[in-house]
Amino acid sequence: MTTRITMAAATSGHAEGGSGLNAFDNALLVAGIGNINLIKVSSIVPPEVAIIDLPKIRPGALVPTAYAAITSETPGETIAAAVGYALPDDPAKNGVIMEFHGVATRAEAERAVETMLAEAFRMRGEIIREQGVVAAEHRVERIGCALAAMTLLTEENLV
Amino acid sequence: MTTRITMAAATSGHAEGGSGLNAFDNALLVAGIGNINLIKVSSIVPPEVAIIDLPKIRPGALVPTAYAAITSETPGETIAAAVGYALPDDPAKNGVIMEFHGVATRAEAERAVETMLAEAFRMRGEIIREQGVVAAEHRVERIGCALAAMTLLTEENLV
Amino acid sequence: MTTRITMAAATSGHAEGGSGLNAFDNALLVAGIGNINLIKVSSIVPPEVAIIDLPKIRPGALVPTAYAAITSETPGETIAAAVGYALPDDPAKNGVIMEFHGVATRAEAERAVETMLAEAFRMRGEIIREQGVVAAEHRVERIGCALAAMTLLTEENLV
Repeated sequence: MTTRITMAAATSGHAEGGSGLNAFDNALLVAGIGNINLIKVSSIVPPEVAIIDLPKIRPGALVPTAYAAITSETPGETIAAAVGYALPDDPAKNGVIMEFHGVATRAEAERAVETMLAEAFRMRGEIIREQGVVAAEHRVERIGCALAAMTLLTEENLV
Repeated sequence: MTTRITMAAATSGHAEGGSGLNAFDNALLVAGIGNINLIKVSSIVPPEVAIIDLPKIRPGALVPTAYAAITSETPGETIAAAVGYALPDDPAKNGVIMEFHGVATRAEAERAVETMLAEAFRMRGEIIREQGVVAAEHRVERIGCALAAMTLLTEENLV
Repeated sequence: MTTRITMAAATSGHAEGGSGLNAFDNALLVAGIGNINLIKVSSIVPPEVAIIDLPKIRPGALVPTAYAAITSETPGETIAAAVGYALPDDPAKNGVIMEFHGVATRAEAERAVETMLAEAFRMRGEIIREQGVVAAEHRVERIGCALAAMTLLTEENLV
């Protein structure tokens, strides 16, 4: 896969839907990534990538994305998903992305991701220069989804 | 990921196997996509893509594919998988792919996908110009798999 | 996806972690693939690909990878993951990759993969010229992960 990732953007969303997959689709639309093809990756920010706000992405683009999602059909349940990134002091080294989803609050999801990022950097012997977490919380009415995603983008993905 | 998707082709298959993974592999062979690398995507038909019959694809090609699959080890159980696409009136906009798999009949799987596509278009404020659904149903003998897939193809994937 | 896969390399690892995802991340680091983006594929060795030892891969590279992983939070449990490849007599044809993970020993995981590869080749009417299996076994202390992976590489993935 040729193209060099030069940007990364995080986003999140939550929604109800008529089915689990529709709730997921609707949450993606809310998050601004409902009209692209997500390719799930596990889960690294390449070196020298700029963290940007979610840009307009070409419809149908194939976008490597680290994401966490949870769908629930239990009315009243609170679900949450979070994705966080951490970048190292040394810009020549890669960053790390961590994900969490579960029956949890937004704050719990965020804390879980922060703990995971800290361990990931400790294991790599690196120091975190910058980090960020996005999360979504959803209280289920009938069928709901919460998701958080970090897209890895190339220039040609942009409109 | 550089290459522009210009074609999409749907297919389905079902089979028995000596293990769950072999049943899946055998169902892929039946579907005509057993010798390529499927990369799971979630799940958009890019604008101006031609819907074609499944072509001969280069062995080992990396092919972004939306797919649904179910494996069962319960003899006598009926399982089904379906994938459907819908394209919008406006050819500059993207289409949507929806998937279903479960302990169900082929007709139930097809209906589920059609309902999901209708909601997806309602949410996008678009009108469906054209749609199609492929499905597979399997009655399990020992270990069985039913799958349906929509491959997203580039010129260079073709033999 | 333009780029032609020309090499494949297998690896495995196991580790403990503070969470399931950290155990997975730590096992990837042990396996030498903790700083790249794995894109899960299902699961073919393209024709005329060289099987090599795991090289140094560019951090953050997007690498199509067939992998099996299992995480457990049951202290004392033995878990294992294995990935195997088989290449056909005819070098113009593709090989196959099979994966196994479960509560099992390393030997059981290896045997499962070999049985699956044999069936895959029988179904394709091909003869295995060469095959290899890598596996990892882990005895869980608190939260553990075992994984095995086969990376599909291009020249530009290498450092």
